[in-house]
Amino acid sequence: MAFALVAAAARGFALRGPGARAPLRRLAAATAAADAGVAAQVEAQGALIRDLKEGRGLGNKSPEVVAAVAELVRLKALLEPPAAAADAPQKKQKQQKKKQKVDKGAATTASDSITSASEDFSAWYADVIRGADLVDASPVKGCMVIKPWGMAVWDRLRDELDGRIKASGAENAYFPLLIPRSFLAKEAEHCHVEGFAKECAVVTHHRLAADGKGGLEPDPAAELDEPLIIRPTSETMIWHMFGKWINSHRDLPLKINQWANVVRWEMRTRPFLRSSEFLWQEGHTAHATRDEALATAEEMLDVYAEVVEHFLAVPVVRGAKSAIERFAGADETYTIEALMPNGWALQSGTSHFLGQNFARAFDVQFQNKDAKRELVWATSWGVSTRLLGALVMTHSDDAGLVLPPRVAPVQVAVVPITRKNDDAGTEAVDALVDGLVAECKALGVRVKVDERPNMRPGAKFFEWERKGVPLRVEVGPRDAAEGVVVVASRLGGEKRSVAAADAAADLAASLEDIQARLFAAAAARLDGGTVDVGSYDELKAKIDADDLGFFRVYWAADDANEKAIKEDCSATIRCYPLDAQRDLAGKACFYSGKPATHVALFARAF
Amino acid sequence: MAFALVAAAARGFALRGPGARAPLRRLAAATAAADAGVAAQVEAQGALIRDLKEGRGLGNKSPEVVAAVAELVRLKALLEPPAAAADAPQKKQKQQKKKQKVDKGAATTASDSITSASEDFSAWYADVIRGADLVDASPVKGCMVIKPWGMAVWDRLRDELDGRIKASGAENAYFPLLIPRSFLAKEAEHCHVEGFAKECAVVTHHRLAADGKGGLEPDPAAELDEPLIIRPTSETMIWHMFGKWINSHRDLPLKINQWANVVRWEMRTRPFLRSSEFLWQEGHTAHATRDEALATAEEMLDVYAEVVEHFLAVPVVRGAKSAIERFAGADETYTIEALMPNGWALQSGTSHFLGQNFARAFDVQFQNKDAKRELVWATSWGVSTRLLGALVMTHSDDAGLVLPPRVAPVQVAVVPITRKNDDAGTEAVDALVDGLVAECKALGVRVKVDERPNMRPGAKFFEWERKGVPLRVEVGPRDAAEGVVVVASRLGGEKRSVAAADAAADLAASLEDIQARLFAAAAARLDGGTVDVGSYDELKAKIDADDLGFFRVYWAADDANEKAIKEDCSATIRCYPLDAQRDLAGKACFYSGKPATHVALFARAF
Repeated sequence: MAFALVAAAARGFALRGPGARAPLRRLAAATAAADAGVAAQVEAQGALIRDLKEGRGLGNKSPEVVAAVAELVRLKALLEPPAAAADAPQKKQKQQKKKQKVDKGAATTASDSITSASEDFSAWYADVIRGADLVDASPVKGCMVIKPWGMAVWDRLRDELDGRIKASGAENAYFPLLIPRSFLAKEAEHCHVEGFAKECAVVTHHRLAADGKGGLEPDPAAELDEPLIIRPTSETMIWHMFGKWINSHRDLPLKINQWANVVRWEMRTRPFLRSSEFLWQEGHTAHATRDEALATAEEMLDVYAEVVEHFLAVPVVRGAKSAIERFAGADETYTIEALMPNGWALQSGTSHFLGQNFARAFDVQFQNKDAKRELVWATSWGVSTRLLGALVMTHSDDAGLVLPPRVAPVQVAVVPITRKNDDAGTEAVDALVDGLVAECKALGVRVKVDERPNMRPGAKFFEWERKGVPLRVEVGPRDAAEGVVVVASRLGGEKRSVAAADAAADLAASLEDIQARLFAAAAARLDGGTVDVGSYDELKAKIDADDLGFFRVYWAADDANEKAIKEDCSATIRCYPLDAQRDLAGKACFYSGKPATHVALFARAF
Repeated sequence: MAFALVAAAARGFALRGPGARAPLRRLAAATAAADAGVAAQVEAQGALIRDLKEGRGLGNKSPEVVAAVAELVRLKALLEPPAAAADAPQKKQKQQKKKQKVDKGAATTASDSITSASEDFSAWYADVIRGADLVDASPVKGCMVIKPWGMAVWDRLRDELDGRIKASGAENAYFPLLIPRSFLAKEAEHCHVEGFAKECAVVTHHRLAADGKGGLEPDPAAELDEPLIIRPTSETMIWHMFGKWINSHRDLPLKINQWANVVRWEMRTRPFLRSSEFLWQEGHTAHATRDEALATAEEMLDVYAEVVEHFLAVPVVRGAKSAIERFAGADETYTIEALMPNGWALQSGTSHFLGQNFARAFDVQFQNKDAKRELVWATSWGVSTRLLGALVMTHSDDAGLVLPPRVAPVQVAVVPITRKNDDAGTEAVDALVDGLVAECKALGVRVKVDERPNMRPGAKFFEWERKGVPLRVEVGPRDAAEGVVVVASRLGGEKRSVAAADAAADLAASLEDIQARLFAAAAARLDGGTVDVGSYDELKAKIDADDLGFFRVYWAADDANEKAIKEDCSATIRCYPLDAQRDLAGKACFYSGKPATHVALFARAF
């Protein structure tokens, strides 16, 4: 399954580092054509292998399994984008090597090595995630298992954000997972979604029963009168409830937040960045006035920007979406956009000003101070486990994950280095470590002592490095005798010897320093990656050269032109930066030449 | 909807306090017969009302809605258990009054009054929950909306339990919501579930699309090859993953916990106690030896007992389940059983020793220290939002919810009492309150100042009482001038005047006292409600007289006898108390007369 994860990422996530220069649109077209036929065969072959292993209990090295895996590898090779093969022989070679390695492991264990980001960014991303043990692929298409280290990172982010959301005046609640079909029909009608079709999980039965042939089937006698869908987001359910809860201006503002899982069926998935099920929070607020709702949408965008920048150390651009990039039910969508090291943009959180659209769809009115009924004004806002994708890509390196100290579940990994038959030395090491741990805890430093037996110190160093722990402390008997510890930073540089008495304070200061350095490095990259572009030819030339980033342009808002550009070169308007919408007088659109209405950031996006 | 909630609870939750003495089995039979026909009409009528209000935008007072609601009330009256009408005229009268009140409110607001627990326990339970604003009914059958106050209570319990679970060595992770049908088939086969039929939500399609007639339908082109079910529990998914993660004895023990929503289709639901979707945690562990797994199952039962007793102040009996009450895949199920004030038992948490059953079903083996492959040993354990039902019933009174201080989101509600045009007085009150809040926070007391304008102090007192906040502080200008505050306890008694300088410490001490008193009162009730019973006739006489509780008996384990008793009087073996399995020599089973194998607790159970 780890194999499937890597392969799927390397394929779906069709994206190269600066080393590979093929225009991505050719690649996308070729891939789409090839996939249609072969994908089904790949799935069937996967099922066969599972059946051999699980159904028939065959081992990974049995001839049947080995043969079936070889065929799976062959089929998967057919899915590789041919453009990449022609244009990037070096990468192709690498992929072949990778496949052979995987093959050797017979589809259960992938290689331990991490592909260089400069060589193959998407393979690097998958390798970093695997190496840090953040997620695993699941047997359900597009759904990931978040492993303990990934969950610990998410839980820290969740706690931080939850506190900020509560400080904004919102309260947590929980709404049903399942939504009646009729609610979606109502949304489709009022939010002007034409040709409405929603990729979502549809529940049609409420019982699974024996089919009389030794299997199980949805019990035909237990078909639901009205199908239910698994929430892709909860606006409709929450607005139904708001209709019960809101009567008077005294009930406003109403600010609700929910931490939940949501499902949006996805064909091509990548861990964290795009998965059929993901975890998120969704805030929903109702207000008496337009201004108050608008201000809340802006305030929550700021909350997101602050957490993402100060906690995850990922710099973002705050902006508004163009009309065609907006959430369907929104009058205005605000966004924070981050720039990944490969030059692609990552939408990292959105906050919607919903106007009165949902209030109208669900007839939610309040009696104002003049005893008149009015529709309420609304916002919604959310961030998801996708943020972990931004975190991984922004800071990690070819040695694995790098975690900014504030989000790191473990900030300092302490590795005692003792020898058998050296009781005195071991005792001295233990005493020093105990004291250090106590001092670290008093300073609020999250420290973990790695006392696993039968594991060499080098292997421990390697694992904590892969997992992105900011600082490592090594203590041997000689260090203990001298009253020092050795400190290694995940950011590299010489190991330092620090007096044990000063160590806790030194570590705490180093953590602050690492947090600041990570943000500064990412901010410099965002800054350097944002370039002013004067003409469409210039933009296209950069994209063809795989010289990606945020392209800042003067722009005359026009849906048709925006779609034409997306069609032509896959670049989209990521946002109109909030702090850049000035001095437009006399400026001409980089594409149409018409008078500019906005400053826009174009980019390729995840 | 609040109406529907109350009505559903009063009906489905067919249970009276000591005041009503009708044998419950007659009632259950009558209800079942009556419900079959009328329930469908009730649902249709409900849909009609929703359509009038939401579809056609009619108000609650429009003639159409009033007429439709009257008909709904009539239909619902048909669902009332006739036995109750005959045997408990006083209650019937009360219910009529209630319905009239609800009718007046036209199905959107229920009465503010709380039915006395001694008069109608189930109506009281529903009223307490509504009065405290803990949950609301949702438009999806059997699914509840957890409102902010209910969520805040759950989040506190969650945080407390999460800390204890982590201290046991388990780590949080997250597994997919959706489970392949084949996994359940595997479970059904290996865990010896005969005639397997699972009430669960079955996902059959991955797209909802326009049906060409203005509506939406599951897209026939998007039918899944293999249906997926929404997890009713995650053993199968987790054991599939354990199969990938466990290879060697070095991978053991593996201890994983997940906080998640699960769905188990339920026809008759009650807020917290039984709902189709609920929130819970589920722990899953794998071990190299039987002894270690068994010890872990016992340890987690102790964790649950400690949190439930010391945090929720709900005393429990720790015990083992009889063979027929065990989880299907378990070799042993441990349970904590609480006794509610109406004499019914509430299973409050279970911890299963799974033996090698799931390891066998999913072929999860490890290489032991002698390089031999062995199946692993396992446990699983969970508690859910059901615990909030135990919390509500155990402590609340006819004035509403009572929260033990440790779980209360707000421990002290401070109500400043000021008058307009009394600036000096208001300033003095504000200064005193500010100081008190700061001192409370320093002592770790969760305090909230209720400064809502346009709301009389009496209304605030009333609301905090309903919501179960343990202590209330009132501060008026005269109090401020005298340097005192007035303290009222949720447990009653005279209000006390306390010097402002001592107030924070006094409040902190009072909270400890309230926590202890609530537990002591509940423990005394558990003790008094547990009676030794020597013969089956004696047990039946007590049940017929509605004199319920834990009936402690000598018992010779026998599945057929156990089923016969359940059939005859609805009492079941709640557990074999762990601390009572001794001195069995020479004792005879209270039912069969055979030599006793256990001391068992029988009870009616939720």
